[in-house]
Amino acid sequence: MSEYTDRDAAGVSVGIVSKQFFTFARPPEEIVLESGARLGPVTVAYETYGQLSPQRDNVVVLLHALSGDCHVAGYHSQHDLKPGWWESMVGPGKGIDTDKYFVVCSSILGSCGGTTGPCENNPASGRPYGLDFPVVTVGDMVMVQQALLEHLGITRVLAVIGGSLGGMQALEWSVRYPDRVASVVALATTMRHSALAIAFNEIARQAIMADPNWRQGHYYGGPKPDTGLAVARMIGHVTYLSDEAMRRKFGRRLQEKKDFSFQFATDFQVESYLRHQGDKFVARFDANSFLYVTKAADYFDLERRGGAASAVESLAAAQARFLVVSFSSDWLYPTYQSKELVRALKKNSLDVSFCEIKADCGHDAFLIPNERLSRLIANFLERVQREISA
Amino acid sequence: MSEYTDRDAAGVSVGIVSKQFFTFARPPEEIVLESGARLGPVTVAYETYGQLSPQRDNVVVLLHALSGDCHVAGYHSQHDLKPGWWESMVGPGKGIDTDKYFVVCSSILGSCGGTTGPCENNPASGRPYGLDFPVVTVGDMVMVQQALLEHLGITRVLAVIGGSLGGMQALEWSVRYPDRVASVVALATTMRHSALAIAFNEIARQAIMADPNWRQGHYYGGPKPDTGLAVARMIGHVTYLSDEAMRRKFGRRLQEKKDFSFQFATDFQVESYLRHQGDKFVARFDANSFLYVTKAADYFDLERRGGAASAVESLAAAQARFLVVSFSSDWLYPTYQSKELVRALKKNSLDVSFCEIKADCGHDAFLIPNERLSRLIANFLERVQREISA
Repeated sequence: MSEYTDRDAAGVSVGIVSKQFFTFARPPEEIVLESGARLGPVTVAYETYGQLSPQRDNVVVLLHALSGDCHVAGYHSQHDLKPGWWESMVGPGKGIDTDKYFVVCSSILGSCGGTTGPCENNPASGRPYGLDFPVVTVGDMVMVQQALLEHLGITRVLAVIGGSLGGMQALEWSVRYPDRVASVVALATTMRHSALAIAFNEIARQAIMADPNWRQGHYYGGPKPDTGLAVARMIGHVTYLSDEAMRRKFGRRLQEKKDFSFQFATDFQVESYLRHQGDKFVARFDANSFLYVTKAADYFDLERRGGAASAVESLAAAQARFLVVSFSSDWLYPTYQSKELVRALKKNSLDVSFCEIKADCGHDAFLIPNERLSRLIANFLERVQREISA
Repeated sequence: MSEYTDRDAAGVSVGIVSKQFFTFARPPEEIVLESGARLGPVTVAYETYGQLSPQRDNVVVLLHALSGDCHVAGYHSQHDLKPGWWESMVGPGKGIDTDKYFVVCSSILGSCGGTTGPCENNPASGRPYGLDFPVVTVGDMVMVQQALLEHLGITRVLAVIGGSLGGMQALEWSVRYPDRVASVVALATTMRHSALAIAFNEIARQAIMADPNWRQGHYYGGPKPDTGLAVARMIGHVTYLSDEAMRRKFGRRLQEKKDFSFQFATDFQVESYLRHQGDKFVARFDANSFLYVTKAADYFDLERRGGAASAVESLAAAQARFLVVSFSSDWLYPTYQSKELVRALKKNSLDVSFCEIKADCGHDAFLIPNERLSRLIANFLERVQREISA
């Protein structure tokens, strides 16, 4: 394991981990989704890090964002070149300390991280669901996560933690299962997707559906809508960065060439970087899943959840302590949206800590090693644990 | 004419106008582009409004942006439902007063407004240029505009005025033909395209080139890459708006339906608005032209123009008076970029007025009726005319 631990300068890695699977809602059982559609069986892919305490009181549930999956930290094998997506935060002695906490993360419903989704086999037809997969919501994702915790014998968690779409799940947890969640950490997220965020998601979906290989979602076994998905990813990727970050990272630097190509080749490093991001993404992500998870994000809206008249009303159910963190250069879910959340929580007399972290790297800041963020989360978890065991 | 004049509450319309054409660089003549490529013949489509004074000292040249053309104001026929793109600014008694000024606007080189571009016939092959059309720069566009003015017998203009890509042309005019330009009005523009702006343009180009109908640019006479171009336009359109404007305009309002569709149909008004924008655009714009004009914008960079070491050095050639205007919610070319321009102009001891207009409608603000902007431009033009005739 030692050969991996030194790959991450910020701390020690959890090392080699395995993906696990849990299947429920087997026929004739089914789960009923928010849309009214029924789904079953449902398989959940998940990973855990650290040890569950005998009192089962040290559980931290991590909720991943759009392009993530259950592989949060460590390596699946000695040959992996890259660890999980939040290696900088999760591990022994890190912000979410696996020496103290039992960390659980599952791949979200509708995505392509091993949990049931459009690319998985539909038992009814014997072929992948494709667009026969029902549209799912953040609420549906959380319901599946709760089934996993039940399976693991966990009735109450110390914290649910997530950024971006993961933050939406964390907020949903706080109102769907209020007595099961001692605290919520919501990073770079929002109570409801703005028109701007919906617009970018819709354009990305259009790009996928415009790819002739998409074939109404039934492309499995044939050529995949890679060009459409690459364009979709590029759109998303730009919204995760900031003007400042891009200036710092690329400016107007040209590729190897010293001069303009006067062709439609890539002239600028930023162009080649984006194409690279697009290409990398299509190798690991399913185009239909991109449609489903962006739609779930677009539908998320605490202001009208379950017929509520306002976010204050929706959040009235919550009992958890909250840590809300925004990042100064995040223009996808700007700080004012986190402040709206904080105000709605405070109107319900909930225990809320809020911090805007100065960071010039845009929305993605929550994924990037950040000492301040690690300390904030570590201190918050310690306080919550102290208070609930008092 | 009266039936049109009352369509625009802000003032009187110029009424019925006609597009005119001028062809130069006829064989064996050719123009030499910045890339070194040669091009000829070159046809320029243009419109004029108002009367040229006997002293030829009242000329205002308008420079259009990415999706515009030479049709700035008025109507081509009594049946037109919409006037030119800057009807709110150009006309008798308006910000750019056609009772006082002789206004000239030509469609830019490489676009599809009637001036030579990829969709026009290539005399060498007898079919549209497609991607055989050479990549052009903002400098090339300005060179062609200057040829038109020479043809019209105009040696010096009172002002060149443009926003966005039009503003880049205005800046280029000031350094390419410094003794021909008494003043420059640069709106919502930049001295060099940022990495963020290049990124969005590149993604839009990728969306077009990913459309199988694009066929390496030779789609004329067959099905057009409409889906790719629509996605490209939607990307552009979102960058022209602001978070605030979209919130005000759409919020999370749903289409007719009262509830989510739980399908990949359009649920939100913003989605349907964007699809509509995309569809409208493909009816009037050429996909290849989109590639050419965005590339020209990406190449624009006063900081390294002609081997200069800085924008200050590039602008040292300028002699004009400048009015620079930015808009507070423009995140494509934010105010800080206009301020950089102003600093570079001031370091050259040039006469510069700068104003940031508070507007919540994003980059597109310069196209939207704005009393303050109209007054700013009107007063600036009056002052320049007074000073140069003094």
